[in-house]
Amino acid sequence: MNTKTAVLASTIAAALLAGAAHAQQPQQTCFPSRHGKDDQVGNLNYVTPEKTLAAAKLVTKGKSYRLGIETNKDTPAFPPRTWSIAIVQPGQVHGAALGPTKTTYNDDIIMGWVGIGSQLDGLGHIGIDGVYYNCNKAAEFAMAGGLTKLGIEKVPPIATRGVLLDMAGYFNTDIVKEGTPFNRAEIEGAMKRQGIKSIERGDVVLFHTGWTKLIGKDNKRYGSVEPGLGVGGARYLAERQVAMVGSDTWGLEVVPFEKDQGVFEVHQILLPMNGIYILENMETSEMVKDQAWEFLFTLGPSRITGAVQAIINPIAIK
Amino acid sequence: MNTKTAVLASTIAAALLAGAAHAQQPQQTCFPSRHGKDDQVGNLNYVTPEKTLAAAKLVTKGKSYRLGIETNKDTPAFPPRTWSIAIVQPGQVHGAALGPTKTTYNDDIIMGWVGIGSQLDGLGHIGIDGVYYNCNKAAEFAMAGGLTKLGIEKVPPIATRGVLLDMAGYFNTDIVKEGTPFNRAEIEGAMKRQGIKSIERGDVVLFHTGWTKLIGKDNKRYGSVEPGLGVGGARYLAERQVAMVGSDTWGLEVVPFEKDQGVFEVHQILLPMNGIYILENMETSEMVKDQAWEFLFTLGPSRITGAVQAIINPIAIK
Amino acid sequence: MNTKTAVLASTIAAALLAGAAHAQQPQQTCFPSRHGKDDQVGNLNYVTPEKTLAAAKLVTKGKSYRLGIETNKDTPAFPPRTWSIAIVQPGQVHGAALGPTKTTYNDDIIMGWVGIGSQLDGLGHIGIDGVYYNCNKAAEFAMAGGLTKLGIEKVPPIATRGVLLDMAGYFNTDIVKEGTPFNRAEIEGAMKRQGIKSIERGDVVLFHTGWTKLIGKDNKRYGSVEPGLGVGGARYLAERQVAMVGSDTWGLEVVPFEKDQGVFEVHQILLPMNGIYILENMETSEMVKDQAWEFLFTLGPSRITGAVQAIINPIAIK
Amino acid sequence: MNTKTAVLASTIAAALLAGAAHAQQPQQTCFPSRHGKDDQVGNLNYVTPEKTLAAAKLVTKGKSYRLGIETNKDTPAFPPRTWSIAIVQPGQVHGAALGPTKTTYNDDIIMGWVGIGSQLDGLGHIGIDGVYYNCNKAAEFAMAGGLTKLGIEKVPPIATRGVLLDMAGYFNTDIVKEGTPFNRAEIEGAMKRQGIKSIERGDVVLFHTGWTKLIGKDNKRYGSVEPGLGVGGARYLAERQVAMVGSDTWGLEVVPFEKDQGVFEVHQILLPMNGIYILENMETSEMVKDQAWEFLFTLGPSRITGAVQAIINPIAIK
Repeated sequence: MNTKTAVLASTIAAALLAGAAHAQQPQQTCFPSRHGKDDQVGNLNYVTPEKTLAAAKLVTKGKSYRLGIETNKDTPAFPPRTWSIAIVQPGQVHGAALGPTKTTYNDDIIMGWVGIGSQLDGLGHIGIDGVYYNCNKAAEFAMAGGLTKLGIEKVPPIATRGVLLDMAGYFNTDIVKEGTPFNRAEIEGAMKRQGIKSIERGDVVLFHTGWTKLIGKDNKRYGSVEPGLGVGGARYLAERQVAMVGSDTWGLEVVPFEKDQGVFEVHQILLPMNGIYILENMETSEMVKDQAWEFLFTLGPSRITGAVQAIINPIAIK
Repeated sequence: MNTKTAVLASTIAAALLAGAAHAQQPQQTCFPSRHGKDDQVGNLNYVTPEKTLAAAKLVTKGKSYRLGIETNKDTPAFPPRTWSIAIVQPGQVHGAALGPTKTTYNDDIIMGWVGIGSQLDGLGHIGIDGVYYNCNKAAEFAMAGGLTKLGIEKVPPIATRGVLLDMAGYFNTDIVKEGTPFNRAEIEGAMKRQGIKSIERGDVVLFHTGWTKLIGKDNKRYGSVEPGLGVGGARYLAERQVAMVGSDTWGLEVVPFEKDQGVFEVHQILLPMNGIYILENMETSEMVKDQAWEFLFTLGPSRITGAVQAIINPIAIK
Repeated sequence: MNTKTAVLASTIAAALLAGAAHAQQPQQTCFPSRHGKDDQVGNLNYVTPEKTLAAAKLVTKGKSYRLGIETNKDTPAFPPRTWSIAIVQPGQVHGAALGPTKTTYNDDIIMGWVGIGSQLDGLGHIGIDGVYYNCNKAAEFAMAGGLTKLGIEKVPPIATRGVLLDMAGYFNTDIVKEGTPFNRAEIEGAMKRQGIKSIERGDVVLFHTGWTKLIGKDNKRYGSVEPGLGVGGARYLAERQVAMVGSDTWGLEVVPFEKDQGVFEVHQILLPMNGIYILENMETSEMVKDQAWEFLFTLGPSRITGAVQAIINPIAIK
Repeated sequence: MNTKTAVLASTIAAALLAGAAHAQQPQQTCFPSRHGKDDQVGNLNYVTPEKTLAAAKLVTKGKSYRLGIETNKDTPAFPPRTWSIAIVQPGQVHGAALGPTKTTYNDDIIMGWVGIGSQLDGLGHIGIDGVYYNCNKAAEFAMAGGLTKLGIEKVPPIATRGVLLDMAGYFNTDIVKEGTPFNRAEIEGAMKRQGIKSIERGDVVLFHTGWTKLIGKDNKRYGSVEPGLGVGGARYLAERQVAMVGSDTWGLEVVPFEKDQGVFEVHQILLPMNGIYILENMETSEMVKDQAWEFLFTLGPSRITGAVQAIINPIAIK
């Protein structure tokens, strides 16, 4: 959820006002998973061997793509998110080398917030008034030393069908304008334009907006607004039981938020309400150029115990 | 290169003595890459679309495996390597939630050494007297704030043929004894036993030794010795022009080192001399049970700019 | 507030039960400071030049004492608090030195929680239901990237009268038993025994219990219980308008808590209700041996902007 | 040694050229301490009770000064030095409070390089071709996980005579020009102007240049050059056997370096050759205004085990 905080600053006033109108409505916060009361991995349950086998058949050219952008101190991220790396040479002070073949080596230390660069939002990331996926209460699993449930280390191996929706192409532009929502009409329109027949259970759906072109050129615009998934679109994808949804933007969902919608309500619909993971800052430009619309999507997030998110670099294979 | 330092403590005295005998020999430190003078990715150049396409055809069952073990403060790692994670809830002090739909969220901060848990040794990790892959001198690229060459962010997308050699099966044991070297005879013996016809250019070769069974049970033994690749075996695989070599041990190569061999000389043969990456702490038990000997191996290491290593979780698909 | 979390685990059940009885009472959370509505430094306002000048006259022998214990990864601290340091030699890879006089240098990186070892609890550390010193609400100043009020950087220079109360001597023991509360009777009893005539406005009061003798020998006991200041004693010192109170224990106040008292209620009386700072893990053994009861106490906490606590090493001069 | 690396970038070429001229001279790297072969604290041995007692008598007004500037991510520091702090509320997710009195609390995590802001350079900071104070070789004590000798935790309590030399006043300017060296003539001239009769064994000598006025206004100038101590001045102070030397600049010594002098040779003269500590980024403006020329200087650096430097905030009392 890169730079989300920035947005909050600007949207929270309006959002809280909007909140007033809803104040009398009782709000449902616990959404039991359809995958069973102990489930911690959501719609990744739909990535079955049958699904993987079918997805592998989408590989017809052998070209693979890395979807990750780089994570470093200059990657746009809102305060207080910070990143730092240090390179060290343990035991080699003053030019020492090890043994007769003079082995030398570098090691590395990282210090920073996981939510910088390409990232996977795990099911422990977003909740509804403190209640997360499958009715897990933050107070019971979000320990200061690591999540005791819904951690990233629990994510199963991912190899499934990926679908890329070229929204920039759909809107006939290079960079889709901020605040443009992708709902049912836009999703089905893009599918039709690209000849994609269906979105199916267990799929990974990626949106291409051209937004990453702004990185390093207009970081402020990049990180404060974005085109993206709308509330209707999120519900539409949830009904199709996809496993993950991603985009080449910092936060997937449309910002400013749609009228009368909550703050990051799309995140709520996907993560706690439906067990659908979110992929952010996915680099999809080359895939669009190659018209790689349907492909084998693979991802193994590093298994840091108790982590909320992961810095990722999925591999798409066409 | 998890817990390598531990080993150094015990082997360095012997190694330095051994060094005396070699002291008069001039040593070659610069090995120009066969991939061109500007190359930074080594034998991953052999992972071509043709290679990927052929590897995708190895998927016949659709079962996928995650090869990563977990990274946390208890994962065996020698001092001074440390790991820590903290979970935070920015902007939600004292129970605040965002907007009318009451969005709450967790974020995470990591602080630690990259070489803990399952890891990829990049081409900037190991050198020969300060000279690394393709004759790059540490003084010119190993900056304290990040590698300026050979960093992990440069690794291309990886989708290639994987071959698993079941050395525990070959030696008819659960856990191969420490100090057991895998050289040509053992590699070809395991291949024959498993019906693997060849090791080919651009392959990823993994060894299964049963060693990870020791984690949490005998961390000291786990991290101070290991069975593994010998110098002859490393040269054999280098001749076959593989892209990566890995194992279910902390350091891939046999420890104690073979007689008359250098300290981590196998690492030197693979990384700086041949541009072959190393994968450590790969969890391969389930694959052995399923006899998943040849498969599609995929890996996209998180693109942390200037990093030496990566915490990884490759996905193998059979 | 070192290892406090540990205690919470064992005391919270009882505390919450106790809470039931109080549930009907309205609770005051905002205690306006007597130092003015914008004040952020509490009773350190009482450390005036007159006070400092008088305290300097307590120096009669010239012997100085460092009150800090060491902070490292083995210093007792409850999970998830962690500590790590790394030493680096930037720009000196492979034995390089700078210039004709061959300058070399070491640098250091720290990663960890501030609440480890000797520490100063700032006024932003403890609150009453989210309200901190001088009625500051956490939601308004406890930002994830640093406190915007009550941060440690605001602490003025401290040079004032220090008084050491030898509670181990008072109880005629080496190590005062855990759960022993220090209230008015014990404080005045110790003063009388040591010939200390008064505790005055702007003083720093330190308790010696012998507790640090347990460090490295029985860390579990050290960090889960302690003798210390009781609720009555805290009110007594607050009435005397002291500036700081400290002890040679991890958390100053008596644990288990006194009957019918809240969880860390002594912290609440001192910090948010009275603007009195807390000093923890103060090494006072040598001072007791020298009977250094009244002295010049000096402290300049490192001015890390927005920090809650500080790792400290006050100097007492007799 | 804040932002030193920046300077190195610009001076190293010249320095290395200069080095050529010296290349034939044998260089002494080991300077045995006059305090004994096991000594690790250098001239702080001169801070005896007699010295402290005399210094305490310098307190005539009771006014105390904090010499520390703030350390945060915006404090000028050259890459790769970075700083980050995070505020957390363990166990208080979603508004939980502890017990009947509803205790809440903030904790803090720091991640960064120690050499940012006001700092103490310990005796393990600077060496001559890998040899540090009292002939200690880096290879034997500068372990990656912390110094095993010369660490900051060994610094004794410091309460001694401080002398402030107002070089801005001496040069009749607000901010002394970069590259202005302070050698014997300037030091004695400033003393005479201020009526300071002597610099004595065990003293702390501070220079005021006005340089900190540039922070936040011209960070580039601030951190790339500076007026400061020259080689002759360093030798002069070393002969007087002072304990520490500091300034209101990032690196104490004059930059650009004096003609024919080494890279940070003043650091070498003070630290490894004479056991004299260095204080950087000392805020002395208010003291100059008050003409607080001779005073009681107190410092207790936080005792982080194995640290090279310390983030400090000394207290001067007049």
